[in-house]
Amino acid sequence: MRWRIVLEYDGTGFVGWQWQPEGRTIQGVVEQALAKFLGHESRVTVSGRTDAGVHAEGQVASFDAVPDREPFEVRNALNALLPHDVACVRAERAPADFDPRGWSWGKVYRYRYLDRSARSALLRTRAWHVRSLDDRAMHAAAACLAGAHDFTSFRSAGCLANHPNRVMESFSVTRDGDVVTLEARGQGFLRHMVRIIAGTLAEVGHGKRPPEWVADVLAARDRTLAGQTAPPHGLTLVSVDIRDAPPPWSSREPMVDG
Amino acid sequence: MRWRIVLEYDGTGFVGWQWQPEGRTIQGVVEQALAKFLGHESRVTVSGRTDAGVHAEGQVASFDAVPDREPFEVRNALNALLPHDVACVRAERAPADFDPRGWSWGKVYRYRYLDRSARSALLRTRAWHVRSLDDRAMHAAAACLAGAHDFTSFRSAGCLANHPNRVMESFSVTRDGDVVTLEARGQGFLRHMVRIIAGTLAEVGHGKRPPEWVADVLAARDRTLAGQTAPPHGLTLVSVDIRDAPPPWSSREPMVDG
Repeated sequence: MRWRIVLEYDGTGFVGWQWQPEGRTIQGVVEQALAKFLGHESRVTVSGRTDAGVHAEGQVASFDAVPDREPFEVRNALNALLPHDVACVRAERAPADFDPRGWSWGKVYRYRYLDRSARSALLRTRAWHVRSLDDRAMHAAAACLAGAHDFTSFRSAGCLANHPNRVMESFSVTRDGDVVTLEARGQGFLRHMVRIIAGTLAEVGHGKRPPEWVADVLAARDRTLAGQTAPPHGLTLVSVDIRDAPPPWSSREPMVDG
Repeated sequence: MRWRIVLEYDGTGFVGWQWQPEGRTIQGVVEQALAKFLGHESRVTVSGRTDAGVHAEGQVASFDAVPDREPFEVRNALNALLPHDVACVRAERAPADFDPRGWSWGKVYRYRYLDRSARSALLRTRAWHVRSLDDRAMHAAAACLAGAHDFTSFRSAGCLANHPNRVMESFSVTRDGDVVTLEARGQGFLRHMVRIIAGTLAEVGHGKRPPEWVADVLAARDRTLAGQTAPPHGLTLVSVDIRDAPPPWSSREPMVDG
């Protein structure tokens, strides 16, 4: 029996999703909790690995186990066995061939900046501290990102995806007081794509570049023209759109994104 | 020269505001940072002490120091010397007789519940985890709290205030997804007042009591009739309304509230 779980985590205390011989990983603590619960080892598969410091509200993962438990029992057992910075939001039985990577129809990422002079105590692990962002210029600059594009300029050197074409369903920049938030909805993302876009839009927000520059960077297909990769702690994987079948374009592509 | 500072803190790692011989306190770390910066000890006075686990976005405090620094230098020095879970949002020169307790014209507190089956990793230190809250019933029940009242029913046994009468300027209950938020604006608060109200409204939210019950509890002036004191980590002191003179009703009252 295959199970699907939705995980929330605070990435601050982790070196990333993927199991490593040294360092605390989300995969590691989830597999540890599962082993205690099930009485045997079980490998966890994920919709996309997240890097050290990146948070998730709705990461989707799967594992195989005997079907003798109710979904709420699986969820409650995981919440009792997982450390405080990882929670199982939901558990459910999945089709036998369910694959959280291949069956993802889309993802929503959020990137948060804190725009003020003084650093923050409450958002220290949740937002990138910057000063004087023009969020309207950023929103205008980001309009070019919506749609199907070759995102080579916003792809890290280590990206293993087969091709750089992605569909960005929507992209917005909004402000609530000192907090400026990017929201990216797309069918898929390249490695570090949202963080490179966040670093690039920050240059527009700071007035170092005009809004039109972002369209030029996108068209150039050259990573060296874009801005820095924004720090990981501003990024949250909000949700993964999982349906009862893989999407027509599925190719089991990028394992690491955001 | 008297200085006024606005402080933000994550209360999770503190045993409260007030200095204690054992345990990490906000007053303790602020006075430590000031001593390093000024080269001499300086006592910090606050608009109202907060309890262990309670957060602040806009706590107001004051201290005396020689006036040879610019406000931004004081703010930046404190942010360099304070631990990560306390930040100085603003520093400014204040009148010589400024008193953050006596000159407070009002405060805003926020109390957050997380209403869902599974616990949360990201809100674990910021919201009280409960299940199945009827936020509309809570909002209706809370209508009786606005205005001038004797809040004896919502006052902890250890409250040192001279009298139990307070003016609640507004009180609202709103929902955003799984998060239900109380916002209380008042000229002043009794000890544990917001947390006892939060615990009482939770009983209405859970359907254990009808909305009208809260008005009965208020009228009875009897703490034993109200609900439990809700846990501290859901509470945040959002702001203190400081003006250039004390309010007409000031009596240097309650040192500990929320």
